[in-house]
Amino acid sequence: MHSPVKIALLGLGTVGRGVYRILTDNAENIAHKVGAPLIIARILVRDPHKDRGLEVDRSLLTGDFSAILEDPDIAIIVEVMGGIHPALDYALAALERGKSLVTANKDMIALHGRELFAAAEASGADLLFEGSVAGGIPIIRPLKQCLAANRIQEIMGIINGTTNFMLTRMTLEGADFHQVLQEAQARGYAEADPSADIEGLDAARKLAILASIAFNSRITINDVYVEGISRITARDIAYAGELNYVIKLLGIARETPEGIEVRVHPTMVPKSHPLAAVNDVFNAIFVRGDAVGETMFYGRGAGEMPTGSAVAADVMDAARNILHKVPGIVGCTCYEQKPVKPMGRLESMYYLRLQVADRPGVLASIAYAFGDKEVSLASVLQKHTDGEKAEIVLVTHRVREQNLQDALRLVERLSAVNEISNCIRVEGN
Amino acid sequence: MHSPVKIALLGLGTVGRGVYRILTDNAENIAHKVGAPLIIARILVRDPHKDRGLEVDRSLLTGDFSAILEDPDIAIIVEVMGGIHPALDYALAALERGKSLVTANKDMIALHGRELFAAAEASGADLLFEGSVAGGIPIIRPLKQCLAANRIQEIMGIINGTTNFMLTRMTLEGADFHQVLQEAQARGYAEADPSADIEGLDAARKLAILASIAFNSRITINDVYVEGISRITARDIAYAGELNYVIKLLGIARETPEGIEVRVHPTMVPKSHPLAAVNDVFNAIFVRGDAVGETMFYGRGAGEMPTGSAVAADVMDAARNILHKVPGIVGCTCYEQKPVKPMGRLESMYYLRLQVADRPGVLASIAYAFGDKEVSLASVLQKHTDGEKAEIVLVTHRVREQNLQDALRLVERLSAVNEISNCIRVEGN
Repeated sequence: MHSPVKIALLGLGTVGRGVYRILTDNAENIAHKVGAPLIIARILVRDPHKDRGLEVDRSLLTGDFSAILEDPDIAIIVEVMGGIHPALDYALAALERGKSLVTANKDMIALHGRELFAAAEASGADLLFEGSVAGGIPIIRPLKQCLAANRIQEIMGIINGTTNFMLTRMTLEGADFHQVLQEAQARGYAEADPSADIEGLDAARKLAILASIAFNSRITINDVYVEGISRITARDIAYAGELNYVIKLLGIARETPEGIEVRVHPTMVPKSHPLAAVNDVFNAIFVRGDAVGETMFYGRGAGEMPTGSAVAADVMDAARNILHKVPGIVGCTCYEQKPVKPMGRLESMYYLRLQVADRPGVLASIAYAFGDKEVSLASVLQKHTDGEKAEIVLVTHRVREQNLQDALRLVERLSAVNEISNCIRVEGN
Repeated sequence: MHSPVKIALLGLGTVGRGVYRILTDNAENIAHKVGAPLIIARILVRDPHKDRGLEVDRSLLTGDFSAILEDPDIAIIVEVMGGIHPALDYALAALERGKSLVTANKDMIALHGRELFAAAEASGADLLFEGSVAGGIPIIRPLKQCLAANRIQEIMGIINGTTNFMLTRMTLEGADFHQVLQEAQARGYAEADPSADIEGLDAARKLAILASIAFNSRITINDVYVEGISRITARDIAYAGELNYVIKLLGIARETPEGIEVRVHPTMVPKSHPLAAVNDVFNAIFVRGDAVGETMFYGRGAGEMPTGSAVAADVMDAARNILHKVPGIVGCTCYEQKPVKPMGRLESMYYLRLQVADRPGVLASIAYAFGDKEVSLASVLQKHTDGEKAEIVLVTHRVREQNLQDALRLVERLSAVNEISNCIRVEGN
């Protein structure tokens, strides 16, 4: 056994409590596996007097980051405060001092990964962030190490638990969006302002991180095309079911000859696809590599203990690397610069739902408009005819996004078309 | 970039070809990630003149292991010949010389893990074996590192592709065992002598490896209770479906206060369980940890490229560790000695199918026999009555295996009972 490795936690919120509990409760096993005890020596909190629902030695609590930074015995900083400020300043300061940094902060990694990695590399420290994507599901290290011999071709992930819970409820209960949003808020799965989740921004940050690792090229949040789930209706869900699909909010990243596709949007996936059965708050990440073929990683995407599990494992690796004097042994893997493919050049199938006048010739005029832009239709269903109005559901063959959008501009100008109610990409066939 | 790391392959069969292809085709990316080119310097084969369906530099081929062993430039030995002899001798010799060993040989690790790890530890070499369990699915490193902060509570795995293919065909087509065995053989999924797969021995070896890592205590193949799928009939599959279950050959390992449960047998799992949707030759391993909760790892369990992917990733890690002078940084994790729980003390639900005389009082006498051994019944279905004979399907509540076996001895002695046709454990509720 080596002498203890000392750690400081920045933050004692949900994830911080999880990390504290795991490092305390499983201390003996953790020490065996690392080869040294891990000691939480300091915990940075804003208010040392607040009740945290946790038995914690109050003498560890401090409001002073510089005391942590200046303590040469503290080798690992665990940033679990979230947000960008002051988390980023603290993280950079820690790395510049050569302290290894473990974080679950997806916003910080997605926005400032480049400068954080530069700081880590300069001082030879570890920068580990398994907890930043998909909570307890091991995915960063599998991509960086276990699947490292592959050229990764595709990632498709359910990486936001809130929206997956909502879409699952809508699918199983036929409920509508606002109803399930209230249920998600009542259960604590959605925040009071749920927009980061339901508009897909949370998923986009995680996808930027995953895509950067998978394709060895820095992808930032601004590269990601994002569409949320707020336009998905009970009717879309029902039609998807009739067509043998389920609707999921997916993060999709793919390497193509025209660049990297990187996008978050509601997606119809076949019921037989492994992602289709991933329900409620569970997350799953489907990865296709040139050698390994199809793999999937499934588990809880958030929460005190699952995310704490990922952070604690990173702390163990950082400690082991320090004991063996090799922090930074697996560093940044963005050694290439690949272009991002413009959305218009995407090729996909599309589901479309239109409100039209119920009169002869309407379908022909719509089909003509699609044909004009070289969008060919795989299926057309006429629904809910009441003699005056009708609803039409179309599924296209594989076409260019730009052609589809051009066709939609033509279609919406047709006098018989009252509304293009929804357009959802279809993947995984 | 460091100077190249030299590797020798022992064997150029299915997995060896995969490793060769991956290290050759993805050489540039692999060099970037490791920090040095990886060079295959020698390949040990029995017959250097055999055609291998592979473009390979014939000057690399050799029949002489000692030339590899004595070559100080060869730092990593990749054992992909399979079997115990001479693989074990070669592996031990390589480790004793301080060469890192990567292997996909589940038989060798399951039977001789202890001595191999002792040799690795003595010389400070790496012993890596991700490819030995579930082909391309990352599971060894996730258990050893990503989930290392957890106390693992349970592993349930579909870890044999042949039997999963067969059970999937039986479920989807209503086919019987011998029919699907022929299909599996025709497709090359089952060997001419399929007994290691269908009798559960292949799965048992993999489970011994997984359980050893999960519970930090050496589990050998002899500790594993094994039952294969040859007694599963189309009728059992159909009744399972009626009861909302599917039948899978599972490897199950669980830590309990009475010791470690470790067993391979056909198992009924609820259709809603994540493992129920894992079909054909796919493998999946469901892991429950005290912190992370439920996770699952899914992918192809065998084959040239999937297993090659796992082996090549291990080679990359071994090379990185050599460059940083830390081979063996993550060593053997069996630092405890835990007892294995005897099968009689298992608690489970059971599905039973009996052939009985179709006359009044039979069910009562059977129920009485079960009650006498404290086995309570959750459901009883009478099937296929023809006036003379009837088939009865029972599902028990959770009971001790010993009580169930004692009850079955009573039941089979009843004059009205012609046969106990099957007994299948029910898990995952």
